[in-house]
Amino acid sequence: MTSAEGSPGDTRLGDLGERGVLSQVFPRLSMGDQVLLGPGDDTALLAVPGGRVLATTDAMVRGQDWRDDWSSAADVGHKLTAANLADIAAMGGVATGLLVALAADPDTPISWVRGLTDGIVAEAGQVGASLIGGDLSGAPPGVVMIAMTALGHLPPGGQGTPVRRDGARVGDVVAVAGTLGRSDAGLRLLRQNSPDVDPLLVATHRRPCPPYRQGPAAATAGAHAMIDLSDGLSRDAGRIADASGVGIVLERTTLSPYVDELAPAVGLDAAWQCVLHGGEEHALLAAFAAERALPPGWARIGRVVAGSGVRLDADALPAGGWDHFEPDVEPDCEPDGEPDGTRETAHQAPGLLGG
Amino acid sequence: MTSAEGSPGDTRLGDLGERGVLSQVFPRLSMGDQVLLGPGDDTALLAVPGGRVLATTDAMVRGQDWRDDWSSAADVGHKLTAANLADIAAMGGVATGLLVALAADPDTPISWVRGLTDGIVAEAGQVGASLIGGDLSGAPPGVVMIAMTALGHLPPGGQGTPVRRDGARVGDVVAVAGTLGRSDAGLRLLRQNSPDVDPLLVATHRRPCPPYRQGPAAATAGAHAMIDLSDGLSRDAGRIADASGVGIVLERTTLSPYVDELAPAVGLDAAWQCVLHGGEEHALLAAFAAERALPPGWARIGRVVAGSGVRLDADALPAGGWDHFEPDVEPDCEPDGEPDGTRETAHQAPGLLGG
Repeated sequence: MTSAEGSPGDTRLGDLGERGVLSQVFPRLSMGDQVLLGPGDDTALLAVPGGRVLATTDAMVRGQDWRDDWSSAADVGHKLTAANLADIAAMGGVATGLLVALAADPDTPISWVRGLTDGIVAEAGQVGASLIGGDLSGAPPGVVMIAMTALGHLPPGGQGTPVRRDGARVGDVVAVAGTLGRSDAGLRLLRQNSPDVDPLLVATHRRPCPPYRQGPAAATAGAHAMIDLSDGLSRDAGRIADASGVGIVLERTTLSPYVDELAPAVGLDAAWQCVLHGGEEHALLAAFAAERALPPGWARIGRVVAGSGVRLDADALPAGGWDHFEPDVEPDCEPDGEPDGTRETAHQAPGLLGG
Repeated sequence: MTSAEGSPGDTRLGDLGERGVLSQVFPRLSMGDQVLLGPGDDTALLAVPGGRVLATTDAMVRGQDWRDDWSSAADVGHKLTAANLADIAAMGGVATGLLVALAADPDTPISWVRGLTDGIVAEAGQVGASLIGGDLSGAPPGVVMIAMTALGHLPPGGQGTPVRRDGARVGDVVAVAGTLGRSDAGLRLLRQNSPDVDPLLVATHRRPCPPYRQGPAAATAGAHAMIDLSDGLSRDAGRIADASGVGIVLERTTLSPYVDELAPAVGLDAAWQCVLHGGEEHALLAAFAAERALPPGWARIGRVVAGSGVRLDADALPAGGWDHFEPDVEPDCEPDGEPDGTRETAHQAPGLLGG
């Protein structure tokens, strides 16, 4: 695996100069029909049918969001892209263009940047999106940061407006598309130095698999509210509840299948923690009217009630999940006393998280 | 001046948590009519008349692109925003929406983030653009990086397509809108610890003043090619020359007024270096048909000729200016032996630049 540190003989960004780096990046890109002007000028130009563009940004920092010994450059590219594309999907949209700002120690090997590019392009290819623009900056020794912006549009057949977080109504069914807790379970196996226990969970941690098509499908099916599960089910369900002025009850019976899938690898208690609080899963959570059948690919895990906050059946659920600047660790979320963050480096370097 | 390091009693990002930080940022924002959905959901939604969106990204890194003792948080916000908005203008476009990814040491004072936000919002206000989305990440100790994406549209009255770099034709007049060399001259005064010699030059270094409206005006006037002067006149003129398959001759007589303006502050030789190679000016450079008068606000500084490269009258011009990963320093650009970069930290920390 090529790490961002590299080997002694590697060619480094500083050896090539900006133009030399770009000459190795550009040939790895391909442009979809929606790209009216790609990289290489002052800006790109992207078609957005309907005259409205969805836009979101998300970043990853070496030593904060990934560890070189656990995630390859391509893994980082896949994961960052998945996080951004899932945000577009969670509005009912389809992503079409990506922009990337890379700030990197000039001592970073060019092979790492090639791998990053390939990961981005491969993940973007799943929805037909293109890498249309970017920026290269130097950074202090050891520092690598990648910020991505995703652009997209609302396809015809949806609701005409994006599916926001604030539309959940009392009586709605709460449903999920995609997996729950797999990324966090994979991370726990990496932390325990036992990735071979379940390589597929570890693979999901390295490269999440968001159900991109289920976003527009939910919009077409009339979803009242939707969100991307990036920071943990409890925290992200709480965001829908807060924005909508309602409470959400998650149901043990409907969550059990997700827990049972993980329990053999990480144990039953940890499996519940992964399902309820695990981050970086990038599944989709939505609220639908109870009167209609859920669209294919969506599964009920709870319901919307009057009140506020998130409960597991009758029990109040502590707000676990991920905060980039969390001041307080909540030990009851993690019986082993670890911080409740689920990024790769959360327990290696708690000082990065404040508190 | 609040630096990103702060004072002992300051409230830090890590004290507030992500939600606490955002609660101090959101009230500082205001949304223009083009913003259909602002920050707070999975994505923003922005109107782009014509169904096409211009998009560009640019980043700044503490210790690489600014020094805390020379640039306030608001200065950094102004400069990063100016760099992005100027890219939109250089295509003939009007910027409407910005997204910002901030990765910062949790020990960064919240006052610095407030200042940064205010700088961004104030600069964006000059063109009516809104800060529509963002992302917060932790970063290793001492590290602060800000990546910005600017979105915009092509206003009616232009050419219907963006003004690219590759349209310059032999016989065209090369013209500039805005100032030349002022940012670099201001930086030199800071380096010499003599900012009082010309505070206005130093102010231009801290907060460039791109001629935003001249971008669409040039498009309407039929400009054949245009670029934002971010990395120095010689380098950016070379980009138009390379992309268009032509040569560019810059003229001493037409550049002299720009040099004469700077010479009292930095000396004649340095003034020429500033005008020819100084970065971060964010003026606009364009090629126009020679038969028509230049639009108001544009001044001739050269002409397009057959061949390749950039000359100053008959003399070949070494390719100075800024490369984020420049492998070789070109000492003939800097008689005093400094690297030719013009970012604040270029000569303080040449190791960051490779080579």
